[in-house]
Amino acid sequence: MADLIDPVTLRGFRDFLPDAALSRKALIHLLEETFESFGFVPIDTPVLEYSEVLLGKGGGETEKQVYRFFDHGNRDVALRYDLTVPFARYMAGHRSELYLPFKRYHIAKVWRGENTQRGRYREFLQCDFDIVGCDCVSADFEILLLMAESMKALGIEDFHIEYSHRGIFNRFLHELGLEDCAAQILRTVDKLKALGKEKVADQLSLLTEPKKVDRILDYISTKDSFSKTMEKLIKEAGGGGEDTERVFGLNNMIDELSLSEIFVLNPSITRGLDYYTGIVFETYLNSLPDIGSVCSGGRYNNLASLFSKEAIPGVGSSIGLDRLQAALNELNRKRDSRASLSLIIFCLDDRYLGHYHRMASTFRNSGIGSEVYPERKKLSKQFQFAEKKGIPLALICGEDEFERDYVTLKDLRNRQSYEGFSLQEAVSKAKELLD
Amino acid sequence: MADLIDPVTLRGFRDFLPDAALSRKALIHLLEETFESFGFVPIDTPVLEYSEVLLGKGGGETEKQVYRFFDHGNRDVALRYDLTVPFARYMAGHRSELYLPFKRYHIAKVWRGENTQRGRYREFLQCDFDIVGCDCVSADFEILLLMAESMKALGIEDFHIEYSHRGIFNRFLHELGLEDCAAQILRTVDKLKALGKEKVADQLSLLTEPKKVDRILDYISTKDSFSKTMEKLIKEAGGGGEDTERVFGLNNMIDELSLSEIFVLNPSITRGLDYYTGIVFETYLNSLPDIGSVCSGGRYNNLASLFSKEAIPGVGSSIGLDRLQAALNELNRKRDSRASLSLIIFCLDDRYLGHYHRMASTFRNSGIGSEVYPERKKLSKQFQFAEKKGIPLALICGEDEFERDYVTLKDLRNRQSYEGFSLQEAVSKAKELLD
Repeated sequence: MADLIDPVTLRGFRDFLPDAALSRKALIHLLEETFESFGFVPIDTPVLEYSEVLLGKGGGETEKQVYRFFDHGNRDVALRYDLTVPFARYMAGHRSELYLPFKRYHIAKVWRGENTQRGRYREFLQCDFDIVGCDCVSADFEILLLMAESMKALGIEDFHIEYSHRGIFNRFLHELGLEDCAAQILRTVDKLKALGKEKVADQLSLLTEPKKVDRILDYISTKDSFSKTMEKLIKEAGGGGEDTERVFGLNNMIDELSLSEIFVLNPSITRGLDYYTGIVFETYLNSLPDIGSVCSGGRYNNLASLFSKEAIPGVGSSIGLDRLQAALNELNRKRDSRASLSLIIFCLDDRYLGHYHRMASTFRNSGIGSEVYPERKKLSKQFQFAEKKGIPLALICGEDEFERDYVTLKDLRNRQSYEGFSLQEAVSKAKELLD
Repeated sequence: MADLIDPVTLRGFRDFLPDAALSRKALIHLLEETFESFGFVPIDTPVLEYSEVLLGKGGGETEKQVYRFFDHGNRDVALRYDLTVPFARYMAGHRSELYLPFKRYHIAKVWRGENTQRGRYREFLQCDFDIVGCDCVSADFEILLLMAESMKALGIEDFHIEYSHRGIFNRFLHELGLEDCAAQILRTVDKLKALGKEKVADQLSLLTEPKKVDRILDYISTKDSFSKTMEKLIKEAGGGGEDTERVFGLNNMIDELSLSEIFVLNPSITRGLDYYTGIVFETYLNSLPDIGSVCSGGRYNNLASLFSKEAIPGVGSSIGLDRLQAALNELNRKRDSRASLSLIIFCLDDRYLGHYHRMASTFRNSGIGSEVYPERKKLSKQFQFAEKKGIPLALICGEDEFERDYVTLKDLRNRQSYEGFSLQEAVSKAKELLD
């Protein structure tokens, strides 16, 4: 007994107490329902993969954070650090078993050994949804629409989605003769919201001459109506092209579904990764702008280039569930996360436990979740238990009630009692009280 | 392009294609609903923990199979190999935040580097449910009842649950003077179904004299009515005790809920682990006896002894979800695992894509999952896509329909067409056809 082990978790890793687990589960179920109503299907992949598969990309910063080790068979393996690389490997490996366009979602844990001092977790949940196998405006639009519908499904109404097109930006940089450092410029511009205009200007100055820095700042600061902004972008990019046609097409569909209040064309949206080639987008909660984007993504022209010669274009988005759950708590828009348990049958006499369990079954068969307090304890203790667990109704059946085949129903929220009910009457009354 | 990476998974690890992922998700949802209707709440714990926490038990065979390594901070860490040890650590760590009795369920992946030649997976899903914090007949019964209700919720009717009590067996071995090798005898007897009577007799012969082997074989072979079996066990154990009282109490409750067809007292059930101290139980599908138990567990008197001085008694059970899912497939009791997607809007003209998406929204708002085929392709190709994905209904709207504000609804299951409908009429018809 002397050497008890300290029951601690690793830093950056979390236990979920029941309320938090229920609230996360409710969030996930609402998203799953929404995704599936759009024809997205779930997939799953292993947590552990060959390091070569996960790191083939050679993700620089990422690689340092990956949990990587040699297993029993001396295989070089790693825990997945995102859901994109496993999806690329999945598409290449199962191409012949799947149809295109393929719409999948994947909600699962990923691991990164990040610095926890910045409040980051090392184990967190990602939620990705993608349409692969077609490069068309309808798929771009569907991802944007699904992002909006997902927010609404979670009870969030006050949000907007900012989008832009990487192709137009690239042509603009080409016009400026800056195609060689385009990737660095994109990554710098991506930090505009986090760092502010001045610091971005400083960083751009390291890459190019002041005149061009001003042109870039002017480009990304454009804040105007859709048509005025497009006019400017077309001019800056040296004319219209497939990319601007795509944005016009997208905007038409946004108008047709009366969504122009939600979607804002913002040329400063670039997303840092080289990976994206078409439209890119981010989602902001209007009342919590500081938490940053809660759902972001874009179009890429080749998902699985590391694994297959077949080019698979796609468009996809990712919800930061931890950030979103924190935001929902802050907005007090937390859904009722209590379990479906509605009734507890108190134990007044151990002799009646079989009777109690039979009654609990009757309630459950009528759709009312119910449990039996498992042993005779002081009633005050049983009341306390019900309160801690948030159970709204209690059923009482002692010797007196048992002899007369009666029960007493108690509404624990207002302490109201309903006495002398038959079991069937109690079921009806409970339904009424819970509605 | 020359060095493509082979898109393979590690041996013993699996991808889930959409149908398998959907069917697993449906299984999990049914179980979650059932557990919550009994007042069980979900928890979650990290995938990665300190090795000392997970292996403090020093699980011999288990230890060799654990994925264990040093992380970036040179911490000795491991992937969880079951959900019991993390639960013990969780109860010790969060005791003050939880109420007792605490009823939790946990459905999550665990990892063991087992020999894959025996058809074992190295990554698999466990589903545990426990009641901790009370040692009483009601909790024992509730776990048994929940096991039965879980099977029924999954559409399995033809099963039975065999149970016994470790305390009675231990007293019987004490009567035989075999308490010193009780653990070995229990582990041997546990293999009765797998090895057969003869091999068990051989193995017992290595532990004790022939006369006692015969007594043990006779004890575990008892197949009689509940009361006859109890009579014999009481005699063999040197009289009645708390343990036999517990079994009588349990049987009373089984009778009161008219479940005696499902529950069979079988003295050969011991469960191998030292961990169990009270009732132990296993679940068999009557038409697939060879796959072994699909849901097993028992009572233990101290969950968290490694982490806490407070003794936490409990009773719990675990469903082997992989085995059960395989069994359900074999029984053809697989639930309809298709996504909730019911309708596809074919793309006859790219100009109408906005209109198509607006119609899809209308269907979804009426509770009918629907998607838009994202680009104009040959209709035969779009039909093929719908068929592969198992979508029952299609909506067609070409130039003719668009001009007249009509749509055509097609039932893809029988190729029946419904023409000249308004959108609202199509929604009503679709509902009717899907019912």
